Amino acid sequence: MTDTITDDPASATVVHPTVTVGQYLATRLVQLGADHVFGLPGDFNLSLLDQMTTVDGFTWVGSTNELNAAYAADGYARLKRGIGALVTTFGVGEMSAINGVAGSFSEDVPVVQITGMPSTVARAAGAHLHHTLIDGDYEHFVRAYREVTASATIVRAQSATRDIDSALMTALRESKPVYLAIPTDVAVAPVHAANLRTPLVGATSDAGELARFREGLRAVVTPSERVTLLVGPQVHRTSLEPVIRDIADHDGVYVASQNMAKAVLDESHPASLGTYMGAFTRIDEAREAVDGAELLVLAGTVMSDFLTGFFTQAFDEDAAIELGLTSARIADTTYYGVRLSDSLRALHEVLGESHRPAVTPVGHPPVLVADPPAPDAELDQDFFWDSIQGWLQPDTTVIADAGTSFYGALDLLLPDGCALLGQPVWSAIGYTVPATLGAAVADPSKRCVLFVGDGAAQLTIQELATILHRGYTPIVFLLNNGGYTVERMIQSPAAVYQDITPWDWTLIPAAFGARDLAVTVSASTQAELAEALALAHATTERAVFIEVHLPERSSPRLLTILAAAAAAQNAKH
Amino acid sequence: MTDTITDDPASATVVHPTVTVGQYLATRLVQLGADHVFGLPGDFNLSLLDQMTTVDGFTWVGSTNELNAAYAADGYARLKRGIGALVTTFGVGEMSAINGVAGSFSEDVPVVQITGMPSTVARAAGAHLHHTLIDGDYEHFVRAYREVTASATIVRAQSATRDIDSALMTALRESKPVYLAIPTDVAVAPVHAANLRTPLVGATSDAGELARFREGLRAVVTPSERVTLLVGPQVHRTSLEPVIRDIADHDGVYVASQNMAKAVLDESHPASLGTYMGAFTRIDEAREAVDGAELLVLAGTVMSDFLTGFFTQAFDEDAAIELGLTSARIADTTYYGVRLSDSLRALHEVLGESHRPAVTPVGHPPVLVADPPAPDAELDQDFFWDSIQGWLQPDTTVIADAGTSFYGALDLLLPDGCALLGQPVWSAIGYTVPATLGAAVADPSKRCVLFVGDGAAQLTIQELATILHRGYTPIVFLLNNGGYTVERMIQSPAAVYQDITPWDWTLIPAAFGARDLAVTVSASTQAELAEALALAHATTERAVFIEVHLPERSSPRLLTILAAAAAAQNAKH
Repeated sequence: MTDTITDDPASATVVHPTVTVGQYLATRLVQLGADHVFGLPGDFNLSLLDQMTTVDGFTWVGSTNELNAAYAADGYARLKRGIGALVTTFGVGEMSAINGVAGSFSEDVPVVQITGMPSTVARAAGAHLHHTLIDGDYEHFVRAYREVTASATIVRAQSATRDIDSALMTALRESKPVYLAIPTDVAVAPVHAANLRTPLVGATSDAGELARFREGLRAVVTPSERVTLLVGPQVHRTSLEPVIRDIADHDGVYVASQNMAKAVLDESHPASLGTYMGAFTRIDEAREAVDGAELLVLAGTVMSDFLTGFFTQAFDEDAAIELGLTSARIADTTYYGVRLSDSLRALHEVLGESHRPAVTPVGHPPVLVADPPAPDAELDQDFFWDSIQGWLQPDTTVIADAGTSFYGALDLLLPDGCALLGQPVWSAIGYTVPATLGAAVADPSKRCVLFVGDGAAQLTIQELATILHRGYTPIVFLLNNGGYTVERMIQSPAAVYQDITPWDWTLIPAAFGARDLAVTVSASTQAELAEALALAHATTERAVFIEVHLPERSSPRLLTILAAAAAAQNAKH
Repeated sequence: MTDTITDDPASATVVHPTVTVGQYLATRLVQLGADHVFGLPGDFNLSLLDQMTTVDGFTWVGSTNELNAAYAADGYARLKRGIGALVTTFGVGEMSAINGVAGSFSEDVPVVQITGMPSTVARAAGAHLHHTLIDGDYEHFVRAYREVTASATIVRAQSATRDIDSALMTALRESKPVYLAIPTDVAVAPVHAANLRTPLVGATSDAGELARFREGLRAVVTPSERVTLLVGPQVHRTSLEPVIRDIADHDGVYVASQNMAKAVLDESHPASLGTYMGAFTRIDEAREAVDGAELLVLAGTVMSDFLTGFFTQAFDEDAAIELGLTSARIADTTYYGVRLSDSLRALHEVLGESHRPAVTPVGHPPVLVADPPAPDAELDQDFFWDSIQGWLQPDTTVIADAGTSFYGALDLLLPDGCALLGQPVWSAIGYTVPATLGAAVADPSKRCVLFVGDGAAQLTIQELATILHRGYTPIVFLLNNGGYTVERMIQSPAAVYQDITPWDWTLIPAAFGARDLAVTVSASTQAELAEALALAHATTERAVFIEVHLPERSSPRLLTILAAAAAAQNAKH
């Protein structure tokens, strides 16, 4: 197929090389780094898949169901810091995936959801095909997707390259998911290949607006003795951690972060304030440095309940400088089209134009340390996370499911080269098992360490089969605490709806046909955990699946206080 | 709670007993037979669940994920011939369930999807809560549900009883799913309980329209020597099989059915034409009796691709009498508000007013008969279904997943008292594992026999844990043929996307913690299948899980010809 997009110089006539729409789309995805695509076949996407799989560099990652495919594409996009993609079939497939795509919207992840839909002729006729609602309306699902994507398009043959490029550029520009439905006839339609010679690039800032922003920024930064940054998850999405580090190296700058401190700036850096969560900020000096900042810059922040300690931030948001993905604001002036990459670099430049006294480093939360394991002592969440702190290795992708896992992991000080993958905003339980597949596919050089509760794992566990059979070697901590502990912490811990069925988790890898691909162990005591952790370090060629038995109502520190706040908020209204 | 809805006669003052909105809803569901409700907890539905679970007769069936809960509620509704219900949380929960609810719409199943949503105050403020899209808009998900339901409502405290009753009556009237979002504050708000004294009843026909319809019907039926009925799935939804049998007892009547013959009319009845699928109808005389009918009545039919043999019906739809769920049509006159129950009864009455000669019974397809098993002979789909025919017992709920399972089961002659549960229209693979939970909960007196392929089972297998731990004893045939055979039959059988990961299926029940609750066996040869079938009959107190190894490209008769037609249709456009 690659040949067909090159003009043949030997030909005397003008050649207009063509590819099919399916090939065009797959080529664009490969160009953007989405060279592994997740999903399932269905009879309305077979022709599309047949086209896409002919493209050099394109790899299909078959998933066990469509929700899992969406979660995997999301995890892939986060680790790649770029586009993730999945292919589903019409109706039954795409509607199973929509929750995952909504999560990508909520958390600013550019996922491309591609649906193979019935032919243009069938749609025009309103044919009563299977996988439809038998009402002749083929647009129910694109309209549903319009609610959770930055763009949702049914691709037409005549405008296919523009439809596809426009959607992909929207995903890049907005860092949001987009939706493309491709009818069976359009998937195989020929289109000019010429565009493919120029890979799509991300959006750039409006030069005039950026210049005006820089002026405005200079006016407020120059007279300030101290500048405090609060850095949010959008900085991670856009790979701007190096710019944050450059900014932190200026004198007079403090840097706090929302729920992902280590990934943004090493906590040993003198400018680091660690994690800021409003009233739940662990170090008082750090909280005061943000809430009482002389000049506060919000860089790629998301001011949601879990990220702000239930809206307990005490700073004046209107007075802060706000650097968003696609616009920036200083006081009451918004500079549209100024992208986060440029606004942060402008801040770095402006800081370099003036001098301010060095800041006094603030203290940091104590690093978790586990007591020596007592042979028969039962495990609890505190001992577990204390032990994990000492055991985690550099260059690990740490993945933590909503609930005890995520809030336990947030108190870890992550070693160098580690990333933390989780959903602080969308917080869908079960997200992480498929996200681990996506993360492993995106960056096989980093070992994945997954923390997931038993209740959460039951939602999506089948994707572990894909992970193991593809030969990835994650370490999975299955935190077995007999139900939905995160909900028990909020309300009605003894209610029948908090219970789940008790599984024999250590048999799962074998049941998934992967007995030889994973080492499996169960830990109920402190000594058993210590052994399991040692075994995990020693086992590098296979996956390690560790079931950790924890008390039903044991909760990590941070979850305990957040759940109480959530319960209070629910009660208030 | 029951007490509080009764006036206290000893009181001197007028008592206005109240219940909470959550109690009101649960009481309505129990009154309508939806006394088992499926779903998962989440922090925005805890208060709602706390209210619902106080209601006498209400039983919570915790599910492993929300899609499965929707499928289970759908299976429950089908077996109950009434309302099914599920409860999910906002965003992450409801959006995972939407594909199941869309399937209920496509197949006319009245499921109530209940979402616990953030408080009215949070919604009014556009608070940036978790489980939202962080854009202040709390109505994305109700709008998405509007695409796949007959009504989608955010319940307000002031109008809660009306909102709830209206939605439930819509579900009853239309036989379609409805959506209710209940904010946390509304869930606990008090409402008058008085309405609950009168249970909701289904809609009745418009009397005047019905009388006019009967006149119109008499005019065309009386002069006809022969009347042919084609009966569709909506007759099953509305429990009208007895009326069909009454009609069949009149002289001069033929009855064919869409893909569910046995359940509608015993095939040994002289009026029975068996199953009609256009050009794919197995018996020529039966096809001719429908296509060339003197007077054709379409009763609750769905004219979709799979049900019409890819639109190969040769009769004139416009000339036929059409009896739908909520309206009837004779030639170019539509009688709105004439319900299927009444239009069918009118037909029965009108047929009794005149006499016509008895019909000649047509032949029937040969009943499948298995050859004696050869000890080492490998299994194929033909031998498998032939064996099942001789093994199936009366009063069984037969559940067959889309693909080889459904089209294999369609060629079975079902024994007395059997129902066939499947999705001929929506055709979502994986539907049946959770639907088996719903069926077992709805009617524990009938044993469920599930046929599901390995590819399909991987989508939703975790619900088997719920089935087993709740003590149900289905017989599960896991047809292991190494991937998506139904898609292989349509196109590109060797494509990489047709493959799935190979599981060790017989370990699944043990991995789900149910080793003692299920007998597990694997069959690769004809003799092993015979043994497994005998074991299943002998095992009545436990579930039986039978893995059946079948060749990757072996396909039951009906699927082979339908898949060829689907491939031709895809190719045509």
